Amino acid sequence: MKTDIVLGIDIGGTNTVFGFVDEKGKCVAESSIPTNSNEPADVLLKRLHLKVDELYSTVHETHKLVGIGIGAPNANYFKGTVELPPNLKWGIVNVLEIVKKYYDLPSAITNDANAAAIGEMQFGAAKGMKDFIVITLGTGLGSGIVVNGQLVYGADGFAGEIGHTIYDPEGRVCGCGRKGCLEAYVSASGIKRTVFEILSKTNEESEFRKFNFDELTSKMIYDAALRGDKIALEAFDTTGKVLGIKLADAVAHTSPEAIILFGGLALAGDLIFNPTKKYMEEFMLNIFRDKVKLLPSALPGGNAAVLGAAALIWNELKMI
Amino acid sequence: MKTDIVLGIDIGGTNTVFGFVDEKGKCVAESSIPTNSNEPADVLLKRLHLKVDELYSTVHETHKLVGIGIGAPNANYFKGTVELPPNLKWGIVNVLEIVKKYYDLPSAITNDANAAAIGEMQFGAAKGMKDFIVITLGTGLGSGIVVNGQLVYGADGFAGEIGHTIYDPEGRVCGCGRKGCLEAYVSASGIKRTVFEILSKTNEESEFRKFNFDELTSKMIYDAALRGDKIALEAFDTTGKVLGIKLADAVAHTSPEAIILFGGLALAGDLIFNPTKKYMEEFMLNIFRDKVKLLPSALPGGNAAVLGAAALIWNELKMI
Repeated sequence: MKTDIVLGIDIGGTNTVFGFVDEKGKCVAESSIPTNSNEPADVLLKRLHLKVDELYSTVHETHKLVGIGIGAPNANYFKGTVELPPNLKWGIVNVLEIVKKYYDLPSAITNDANAAAIGEMQFGAAKGMKDFIVITLGTGLGSGIVVNGQLVYGADGFAGEIGHTIYDPEGRVCGCGRKGCLEAYVSASGIKRTVFEILSKTNEESEFRKFNFDELTSKMIYDAALRGDKIALEAFDTTGKVLGIKLADAVAHTSPEAIILFGGLALAGDLIFNPTKKYMEEFMLNIFRDKVKLLPSALPGGNAAVLGAAALIWNELKMI
Repeated sequence: MKTDIVLGIDIGGTNTVFGFVDEKGKCVAESSIPTNSNEPADVLLKRLHLKVDELYSTVHETHKLVGIGIGAPNANYFKGTVELPPNLKWGIVNVLEIVKKYYDLPSAITNDANAAAIGEMQFGAAKGMKDFIVITLGTGLGSGIVVNGQLVYGADGFAGEIGHTIYDPEGRVCGCGRKGCLEAYVSASGIKRTVFEILSKTNEESEFRKFNFDELTSKMIYDAALRGDKIALEAFDTTGKVLGIKLADAVAHTSPEAIILFGGLALAGDLIFNPTKKYMEEFMLNIFRDKVKLLPSALPGGNAAVLGAAALIWNELKMI
């Protein structure tokens, strides 16, 4: 008898990664193609279809494809659309309708942070939990909120934008055009901005004075912090403080059992977890204090996004 | 045949109001007793039991009691407890266990803001909605969040504390002991504090310079605003700005179809709704803009709290 698998697809600004995942979260085959961000969606999906068929031919004798889950920026779960994604020239396009041309299978789409949340619930750090939040720390800050075992989509399908809650109404300009969003402080570019803010305020000697803004990377800040660089350590502390304050706010909304940090900046480990936990507790309402776990993602790093997208459709298939 | 009714009880710091409510939200009889905040919970509930029986005797020939719903400060829906209520000397007490001594009926308890949210869903402004938030504006600021037709209780039963999200980490001291909570700005006492802040910053002539802090009431600020008093109008604008910014944050969490304002300060009408709506839209992420309705409560003012408590148990009875 063949083993059921689903196709998980993660559409990123640079690469589109995809793989076949069984019900236990084992990725039996995986590949990727460049997204080519200037291309329309239907061209990408046509290229993708060919590559998926190619990969499927290597596993189809022992496995059967039963569904397709997709993670994509600005994806609307209810409509099946991707709407004005910041890094792709797509406009508003119904991705699920295009997918239906190639595959007559149950399919679902959501944004990458929501996919990560369902991935953690099915296969990762949130197994068995009914109320939790996943924060994805990458170029930006995404979030997926789970309440009572269900992902929160809200009235319009776009719920869970904690990266665009406001830390400081008079603060840093954000990519969304407003001022002071959490994402402008807590993200790969946010921590760079924090280093530049600290450099502007102190006269402290620092290796960072030798780099311009475009040269500096969050990886360099991480490496310097490991060497004990004061400015790098202060930048991590500030990042954790801003994140901790806004996570305390998030806790006051939905009272999660745990908050799970996922993605590049979360890999900095104690450097980001310690200050975040400290300030989150400090700024939390007393009835919530010392109750909310702050956990690292437990999805395997290499194909976490594919697992998340696969988990999305596994979750749907279970509900049918 | 007798008509089914439930008993709705709202335990407040000063009075405990109760009434019998049918499935359509009609309150067929209502009364109240003083809460006597120094008394233990079991003494209050014993007094209440006698008064409830007295009132029931006036309706029991045509009506049948089928359940009991209670709204109380710091109530925990999961445990049936009230835990360290700020205005009652109760400690931690299991209210539902005491109620069970007197009535062998389905019963449920939650805080007053959650009860108001279920009341709006069953009988008021949120009829037919699946995703909305109720903000109660009284001495403090409470909130009840509904996602996918279900009230959000969270992992510990205390979700929905938007009044204790942080507007300014260096801001006003709040009753909860922390700094800068929304409630310290947007509530009956919050708007008084705002008037005093404006008086401290300007030299503007004002009738408010004649009153000390204890004399000033939010009603006086409302009346002055209606007369066009500049400081009163500025106080309402500031109140709406702070509320609008934090409501934009709340929208980014759960993407509600509507936010409903309930309670004393909400009765100020345009004075509070106009600035709140204006700043909420201004500070909202573009994908949510012009989608979220800001509505007044549609529960009858006189017994809104009783209707909310009654709606809580009607909602449970429907799920059985």
